[in-house]
Amino acid sequence: MASGEAAFIAALRGMAAHPAARGLADDCAVLEVGPESASLTLILTHDMMVEGVHWLPGQDPADVAWKLLATNLSDLAAKGAEPLGVLLGYTLAQDNARFAEGLGAALAHFGVPLLGGDTVRTPGPQTLGLTALGRATHRPVPSRSGARAGDGVWITGPVGAAMLGFEALSAGDSSANTTAYRRPVPRLGEGRALAPLVTAMMDISDGLLLDATRMAEASEVTLALDPEAIPLPAGLPGSRARDALSWGDDYELLFTLPPGTAPPCAAHRIGAVLPRGAAPLLLGGSPPEGPLGYEHC
Amino acid sequence: MASGEAAFIAALRGMAAHPAARGLADDCAVLEVGPESASLTLILTHDMMVEGVHWLPGQDPADVAWKLLATNLSDLAAKGAEPLGVLLGYTLAQDNARFAEGLGAALAHFGVPLLGGDTVRTPGPQTLGLTALGRATHRPVPSRSGARAGDGVWITGPVGAAMLGFEALSAGDSSANTTAYRRPVPRLGEGRALAPLVTAMMDISDGLLLDATRMAEASEVTLALDPEAIPLPAGLPGSRARDALSWGDDYELLFTLPPGTAPPCAAHRIGAVLPRGAAPLLLGGSPPEGPLGYEHC
Repeated sequence: MASGEAAFIAALRGMAAHPAARGLADDCAVLEVGPESASLTLILTHDMMVEGVHWLPGQDPADVAWKLLATNLSDLAAKGAEPLGVLLGYTLAQDNARFAEGLGAALAHFGVPLLGGDTVRTPGPQTLGLTALGRATHRPVPSRSGARAGDGVWITGPVGAAMLGFEALSAGDSSANTTAYRRPVPRLGEGRALAPLVTAMMDISDGLLLDATRMAEASEVTLALDPEAIPLPAGLPGSRARDALSWGDDYELLFTLPPGTAPPCAAHRIGAVLPRGAAPLLLGGSPPEGPLGYEHC
Repeated sequence: MASGEAAFIAALRGMAAHPAARGLADDCAVLEVGPESASLTLILTHDMMVEGVHWLPGQDPADVAWKLLATNLSDLAAKGAEPLGVLLGYTLAQDNARFAEGLGAALAHFGVPLLGGDTVRTPGPQTLGLTALGRATHRPVPSRSGARAGDGVWITGPVGAAMLGFEALSAGDSSANTTAYRRPVPRLGEGRALAPLVTAMMDISDGLLLDATRMAEASEVTLALDPEAIPLPAGLPGSRARDALSWGDDYELLFTLPPGTAPPCAAHRIGAVLPRGAAPLLLGGSPPEGPLGYEHC
């Protein structure tokens, strides 16, 4: 991270003193509105995608549209929120029709209305933004910072399928199933079912090990993961198991539950929360070596 | 407008069937949330700005940040909304510190919190997006479509100051006052005061004549403007008076009031609403010739 960039993010944090911003350290803003007698908790997120940075050149614009929506809805899922609608920031490209097709399909699939947005021209690579607005279905709204020693660490599904999809798509292997990379499915139903039970929750967008480290840091605990317990996709070569743990884009939910609490949805127990030790994350008893995930600004 | 672009916008409209989207034809989305007994009306807008398209190369990033916020807040002003917060979509540039400085100053000036957003890298021109969230202070929320024959047409202030500022800035004339172009001030207080009284309201972002035409079309009336009554900035050469009417970026509010209703804020009566005639807009009795404003996608 360039020094100017770190200073910029720090400056933004200074402007985000409102409690709803959660210090810009969570997946979403959590804003209380309305009179006290009937207050409402809004959940807001805005994620961007840049051509050649966040998607492969030549990728189907319909898949790009789907992913833009899905990644933002995944942030809402991590808060147990019900989506209310989205606003699209769109720069025109060659094939706008395919993008519209994919966006329409994704909005219909997830039952979310398009509420507004803006369309502009740019001479540069296509740059997309999407704002998703939701309503909390349970309060307090889950955060990354509530994991407590003694809790179990859980995940809603395997990590690594998006990695395999990306690699097949990059290699032009049309026989492979690349759906997990191209059209991730945010865990909206699971997030709502889990919200009343979890002590901490987040979606895994940048790699399990990196996101688990972030949860540990936010909660001031150590997460001890059992590598044997982490679900991997069928067909993943054994040699790629470690890579799968630091690859992002799977959009499963990572969460912690108090001892004795069973998850109300399909999920895998992959570790335990310990009092904060020397390292925020242990994998098979030791701090993991190598990359933890995708570090971006 | 390229045919692909028109089809894209049409496709988006098809996805925006939710009444809150107002057919993507208004300045903002207007979303009812909460239980009926204590329902709340959210106002949402997302506007983008692209380097070299929406601002001059070499312009002070602090001014760009100010304008990005101000133009979005102006959309809220047109709805009489109280701003609740904003989310920023930011691509890193050379001078991120100056941008942060300008954004911080503008947020503080308008008393609006930064709630979240995203920061990404791009090899292309800087591309910015901002989502502004507000709460309606009056219902029904003003729209463009309520002007009725017999109403007066009003404006909160002069048009043309931004044009003069832009031209001085382009010419490198450092002696001129370019504030109106660089740091527009959304009419938030005026919008709130006007919302209970107006039959239609919008902000003037693309030129008075073009925006007045849009209001006329949405309301299915004719707006008859008196060119002598339209306020122009001090120092505007007489030869530029017509140009000022089709130049955007002034962000004054254009609104209609029933006969006999006086505006609760400084404003100028610039015309009258007529039943729909052959043309949506008359200027001194005839449809205006020449450009009406800035047509963008």
